[in-house]
Amino acid sequence: MSSFRNMALHTDLYQLTMMQTYVQKGLQDQKVVFDMFFRSLPFGNGYAVYAGLEQIIDYLTELAFSEEDIAYLESLGFKKKFTELLRNFRFTGDVYSMREGEIIFPNAPVLTVEARIVEALLIETALLNIFNHQTLIATKASRIKQITGKKTTVDFGARRGHGPQASLYGARAACIGGMDGTSLVKAGNKFKLPVFGTMSHAFVQSFEKEEQAFMAYAEENEGNVVLLVDTYNTLRSGVPNAVKTAEKLKERGKTVDGIRLDSGDMAYLSKEARKMLDRSGFPDIKIAASGDLDEYIIAELENQGAAIDMYAVGTKLITAFDQPSLGGVYKLVEVEAQGKRNPRIKLSDNIEKIITPGRKKPYRIINSRTGRVEGDYITLADERVPEKGRNLLLFDPVNTWKQKTVEDFEAIELQEKVINKGKRIISRPEIEEIRSYRETALSRFWEEHKRKKNPQVYYVDLSADLWRLKHKMIEEMRSHFLKQQS
Amino acid sequence: MSSFRNMALHTDLYQLTMMQTYVQKGLQDQKVVFDMFFRSLPFGNGYAVYAGLEQIIDYLTELAFSEEDIAYLESLGFKKKFTELLRNFRFTGDVYSMREGEIIFPNAPVLTVEARIVEALLIETALLNIFNHQTLIATKASRIKQITGKKTTVDFGARRGHGPQASLYGARAACIGGMDGTSLVKAGNKFKLPVFGTMSHAFVQSFEKEEQAFMAYAEENEGNVVLLVDTYNTLRSGVPNAVKTAEKLKERGKTVDGIRLDSGDMAYLSKEARKMLDRSGFPDIKIAASGDLDEYIIAELENQGAAIDMYAVGTKLITAFDQPSLGGVYKLVEVEAQGKRNPRIKLSDNIEKIITPGRKKPYRIINSRTGRVEGDYITLADERVPEKGRNLLLFDPVNTWKQKTVEDFEAIELQEKVINKGKRIISRPEIEEIRSYRETALSRFWEEHKRKKNPQVYYVDLSADLWRLKHKMIEEMRSHFLKQQS
Repeated sequence: MSSFRNMALHTDLYQLTMMQTYVQKGLQDQKVVFDMFFRSLPFGNGYAVYAGLEQIIDYLTELAFSEEDIAYLESLGFKKKFTELLRNFRFTGDVYSMREGEIIFPNAPVLTVEARIVEALLIETALLNIFNHQTLIATKASRIKQITGKKTTVDFGARRGHGPQASLYGARAACIGGMDGTSLVKAGNKFKLPVFGTMSHAFVQSFEKEEQAFMAYAEENEGNVVLLVDTYNTLRSGVPNAVKTAEKLKERGKTVDGIRLDSGDMAYLSKEARKMLDRSGFPDIKIAASGDLDEYIIAELENQGAAIDMYAVGTKLITAFDQPSLGGVYKLVEVEAQGKRNPRIKLSDNIEKIITPGRKKPYRIINSRTGRVEGDYITLADERVPEKGRNLLLFDPVNTWKQKTVEDFEAIELQEKVINKGKRIISRPEIEEIRSYRETALSRFWEEHKRKKNPQVYYVDLSADLWRLKHKMIEEMRSHFLKQQS
Repeated sequence: MSSFRNMALHTDLYQLTMMQTYVQKGLQDQKVVFDMFFRSLPFGNGYAVYAGLEQIIDYLTELAFSEEDIAYLESLGFKKKFTELLRNFRFTGDVYSMREGEIIFPNAPVLTVEARIVEALLIETALLNIFNHQTLIATKASRIKQITGKKTTVDFGARRGHGPQASLYGARAACIGGMDGTSLVKAGNKFKLPVFGTMSHAFVQSFEKEEQAFMAYAEENEGNVVLLVDTYNTLRSGVPNAVKTAEKLKERGKTVDGIRLDSGDMAYLSKEARKMLDRSGFPDIKIAASGDLDEYIIAELENQGAAIDMYAVGTKLITAFDQPSLGGVYKLVEVEAQGKRNPRIKLSDNIEKIITPGRKKPYRIINSRTGRVEGDYITLADERVPEKGRNLLLFDPVNTWKQKTVEDFEAIELQEKVINKGKRIISRPEIEEIRSYRETALSRFWEEHKRKKNPQVYYVDLSADLWRLKHKMIEEMRSHFLKQQS
């Protein structure tokens, strides 16, 4: 369920029909470059959080067709000459990627593949499938965590994810993005994430009295005693019984750790419950809230001074409810022919959808005086690294009159080589490392980019050379198109 | 990636802490009954399509904890007495379910579990996770297919699903719900689904001329020659080149099967393209459309007389974009204590959220005169089957004045036993059988229930005995709650 092996057939049929065409025409060894990126930010957020790289690497480095796969393809009518090639097929290309956990923006290449055309085509579907999912959930989680701040915030969405694997890798992505843990035990085990859990209404009801249920649970789950208080009535039954339980445990030198609210007006209930707990001498009992929460509801609760210490977020996080798709794409930017590298472009009626051609390098420009990020800056791969100490002109690639000059900056290269000739060449980071990388990366951004509503648009600019290449090619394509018509 | 084995830890932590509590208190063998159902229909649709049963059965019949799972749980602080029980843990209960592909409605038990409490708790998360996902996608697919009718309609969403497994089982569910096939090769192989594919813009661009790309593809993919015509300009370049390709192939006795539109105004473009193809003597070349389609856009295209023969639906289908979660729940309805079966209920401020207690049987009432469905009718498990030939009073369980009497009817029991003492007792149906079951089931409904906007609300009624039990228990719970307060 959780492996990314055996995924050779996890591809759209057209990748295979196109591959077959190249093979039959003897064109399969053309070297190409594809960029993976996305075009617009989800949820109206000011940034996205990159997740899924580890699974992409696993998929690429273990890619192989089984005999059963090949038999199936032959049954579909694929030709022997082509399926022979698949029998020994491996991904042998190079992959450059931003680090997992990176703060990413539209139109900057997150991951770049250099490979034979047949290899580069086959992998598109799986790469986008993994990237789109995990980056979406990580971004949603980051957005939620921006609101909850230092308060423990946990993924409770397992039952509502799009199947078991979506819940499992969704939990992973959620923790990369900012969640402090998950209720999903498998995710805790597989990714070394903190796991959280309380009790259900069914549990409380299975005892004659609420108090009995609380006491039984408390006796057997020391260190993790969070009592669900809304089965009968939160303030008239649940909280008083939680207090009674806490008093009994206190006599034995033990504690109730928290209560959980799961329905009703959480602002009011939490404040009242807090008072009751404090008055009874239990200021250390924490209050957790769950039940169809998202960043908007949590922001309202926080504005109203809700006395909530911990948030559990389910459906809205794990399904990215308000925008359940990230439109990540994977586009051809260069073809090598007769030993010459030719940048490629695809036109569109919409200038913002025109692909930036060529093998490129994305940099992040950090202002050395403030330590804050000024923008991303994309150059051609063979351009010189933007030099520290010099002035750098940043200009919007569409609205070119929008410019700024950065004087004292550092340019950090965002991609690193992660796969060399089909082999992984970076170590496997723990989620904790990815989380903390994300945290540091995000801390370099101005608050204006992190705002939940109408955040400041972040600059993703092109070097002057790259901009000129792109516009030269747009002109060439126009004339190429005229030839198509003739 | 695609197996539902090894899923013992795919559960929320609280299931395990509650299980441990029951084990430590010696309560683990209590027999309980849980109902799985959902409370409201997604997308404003008039019905839902049940999918995921096969994976639920696989999960339940292969459930076991590995030594590694147990070591992990012990590292979390679970006690030996409890983990010893897990070492030989199997699901040994009985499961009753509606058939996969069934047309289902809110508040009727889709699946019922009778098991020891520790078994029944553990499985909640995975059951809901599978049910919520596949039923959601099957329902979305059915909704789309209601609009496209006999026109071939295909899942193209692989790259946008929530990870590989969501795309794979999403394709399965989409075909159960109504799609005629998928672009995802793995799904075609695993579930014996028809696979569809054309070519990409990158493919067209990798040739010097569009026409060369078309010809190369056509030569190598006989029988599946669908040409993507919007890379340069649909009407001025793509369609004319498709016609040229078709003419050349015709000389060799071969054919172009279709063209694909992927951008622009599809109503206009398809009508113009149709004229061009017809005028050139190719009335058999089909026109396919793709590009962010959903049932609303397709309905508009159809209203405008678009000449589209085939629809490919991606993101909006595979993510259930407009409502990416089905709120399926799993609720305790009966506890056996001292050999006596005690129905259970859970109150709520909202009467429609109050659970219907007890072990029940759902029936579908078919009007014998019309052959059409009148409503669902839920009885207690030990009530007599509603008798054919007698009058049956159906009344809304909330608004009890809404009543109708059905005179000549047949009552079809909706659930069958699918797992007996932990063992599967039904055969494994092919997707094609599930599809055709769904098709027949849906054909018995009035058009009013299938409408895309404001469909007629379908009756899900309770027998008089069940209704009385429920209301008696609501009263008892009220007094029980008063005792909780004392």
